[in-house]
Amino acid sequence: MSEQAEIRQLHPSRTHRGVTAATRYQTLIGDYGTSDFVMRRGGRLPEVTIAYESWGELSPNKDNAILIFTGLSASAHAASSDLDPRPGWWEFMIGPGKAIDTDRFFVLCVNSLGGCFGSTGPESINPATGKPYGLDFPELTIEDIAKAGHHLLHELGIDHLHTVIGPSMGGMSALAYALQYPDEVDYLMVISAACRSLPFAIAIRSLQREIIRCDPNWKGGHYDPEQEPESGMLLARKLGLVSYRAAEEWHQRFDRARVKKERRKGVPFEIEFEVESYLDYNARKFVGNFDANSYLYLSRAMDWFDVADHGGSVNAGLARILVKKALVIGVTTDILFPVGQQQEIAEGLIKAGRCVEFASIDSINGHDAFLVDREHFCPVVSKFFED
Amino acid sequence: MSEQAEIRQLHPSRTHRGVTAATRYQTLIGDYGTSDFVMRRGGRLPEVTIAYESWGELSPNKDNAILIFTGLSASAHAASSDLDPRPGWWEFMIGPGKAIDTDRFFVLCVNSLGGCFGSTGPESINPATGKPYGLDFPELTIEDIAKAGHHLLHELGIDHLHTVIGPSMGGMSALAYALQYPDEVDYLMVISAACRSLPFAIAIRSLQREIIRCDPNWKGGHYDPEQEPESGMLLARKLGLVSYRAAEEWHQRFDRARVKKERRKGVPFEIEFEVESYLDYNARKFVGNFDANSYLYLSRAMDWFDVADHGGSVNAGLARILVKKALVIGVTTDILFPVGQQQEIAEGLIKAGRCVEFASIDSINGHDAFLVDREHFCPVVSKFFED
Repeated sequence: MSEQAEIRQLHPSRTHRGVTAATRYQTLIGDYGTSDFVMRRGGRLPEVTIAYESWGELSPNKDNAILIFTGLSASAHAASSDLDPRPGWWEFMIGPGKAIDTDRFFVLCVNSLGGCFGSTGPESINPATGKPYGLDFPELTIEDIAKAGHHLLHELGIDHLHTVIGPSMGGMSALAYALQYPDEVDYLMVISAACRSLPFAIAIRSLQREIIRCDPNWKGGHYDPEQEPESGMLLARKLGLVSYRAAEEWHQRFDRARVKKERRKGVPFEIEFEVESYLDYNARKFVGNFDANSYLYLSRAMDWFDVADHGGSVNAGLARILVKKALVIGVTTDILFPVGQQQEIAEGLIKAGRCVEFASIDSINGHDAFLVDREHFCPVVSKFFED
Repeated sequence: MSEQAEIRQLHPSRTHRGVTAATRYQTLIGDYGTSDFVMRRGGRLPEVTIAYESWGELSPNKDNAILIFTGLSASAHAASSDLDPRPGWWEFMIGPGKAIDTDRFFVLCVNSLGGCFGSTGPESINPATGKPYGLDFPELTIEDIAKAGHHLLHELGIDHLHTVIGPSMGGMSALAYALQYPDEVDYLMVISAACRSLPFAIAIRSLQREIIRCDPNWKGGHYDPEQEPESGMLLARKLGLVSYRAAEEWHQRFDRARVKKERRKGVPFEIEFEVESYLDYNARKFVGNFDANSYLYLSRAMDWFDVADHGGSVNAGLARILVKKALVIGVTTDILFPVGQQQEIAEGLIKAGRCVEFASIDSINGHDAFLVDREHFCPVVSKFFED
């Protein structure tokens, strides 16, 4: 599998949302070609396209594949490549000689099923109607995302993973992968994720979804592609950013600094503090680059996910994971998935007899630390692969 | 001053928003009657009405008056009385023999200037136009709220306070009172408040304000009283509730409990988890009972407040407070005004030579603990008044 791998299907939306030629598309028709792709909650998809990128070379005996699942809002572009030299969302982590070493591993990153960066999701065309699925897209779970990743590997002829990795929602997907295909993965890396969402995180995500749905442009999910619910997406993303970062970081970075007078417009209740300007700038980068319905489906999937669904209790579920070793990382300032939730994963796996490294990282960057705190994260990940 | 004190002015909106006969209205025309009420940021109000309630009797030498400023969303109805037997927002704290003992003290609670429970605010009629102020209401600061409370006392013939008390925004108002009238107050009680808002709290409040302003019914602040921006208020209140409570409380209370199937409507993305139902129920009680523009003005005033504006630094400001003793209370699970911010107040006052009691309360109720955690709060407040 090389960078020049054949693009098996050009997804209709491939020019949208910043997806470039580096992203390849794998079409999975049905359950390994025999029937529809059956979803955990009963829905069916007649076609599934999974967008992915890859780095490094698959070894002749196919034993060096790493699969990365992403957080809610990320594309498969985790790192730059010759085909797409733009820095990826995990650029500092993935590459030749880096912590996830592409000289050694064949690294794949998938855009989640239900997403909007090339994989089949609510924005995709429903073959039955010729129109985008919208809310006719079947109910999506984290398990379905993991299953779609598994199908991709099957289509690529890879029947065993060296490691499955995921941060945030991707960590849930990685857990779901290890739960569903326990004999097909050797190592597991779960970062800033949880066995199940607790009410504080559910409340924040539920509110984000309600904010989007309250935007009049959402139109019950049937919005005009030229007139997306941008105001709702902007506000939901701002709330996301509030939950992804930590108070102390912003205190150190912005304190009570004001936006310069010349950058103000003189309208009532306009942006005045630098922290407001930061939120606005970052949230606006998101708006127009993410499908609102995709956001709703993926966000709800995180609320639904519960390892206890696989065996009756969290620990019974974790006991089904048979990896040789797991690395579980949490961040002390994470308010969305507090470090106690990563500890729960680590302790459950240890109780089941697994070999586990647990790292509680004292970063001020909150839930998003894996995206920005290179200094703390790289050595921990690096060491895991050295051992 | 008795429960039967003459109602000096019936505010036009007195039948609105649940205000009853227990709430009395004090009209202050101008700065002690000589001119407009001048606001800190330069605006002027030709008339100021302050709504208040009181409990207990003023002593003959007028040395037992306690003034309570409220949090953003509370009315002056802090406790029940013969005139209004409904429980007040601090019912467990105020009354005969209670921690704030109305057998001993004459207790007043004011509705903040800019509020919508009887005091002059954006919903009040602008005498210049005969219409509600709306966004023509002058820029409001916490110092103005304190000043209006001071005017009320002057009108009532009380020139010295035994204690000024405030939780949350009310704690900022109490600080502003002690800063502006240092010789006119003996004791200070600041609960779950701060010398100044830090970026995390500013971000949350800024987002609440933006959510309200994005509601099409807000109409640039000129909404129809019959068609208020209810959707924006509902979402903003939900975000408020998320910031007022603590993750662990919800974990213990709701975990991942689901709303019973028979209570669901079968619409996409409806409420499913009990925590979502709780937020919805509580936020809906607020909607229609609070003026959206009031919310915007009061919320912004909290962001603007900075003790450092009174002397160049927080400690220089705090050094201007000359009370005999202060009680500063914080809650370990408060994410809006973290306990370090109450510690900052206590330490600054101690540095200035004041006598200070600092209580860090280990409650799971977060910022709202003062409203619900009777067990932890009453003994601390009680002890302060015994000493």
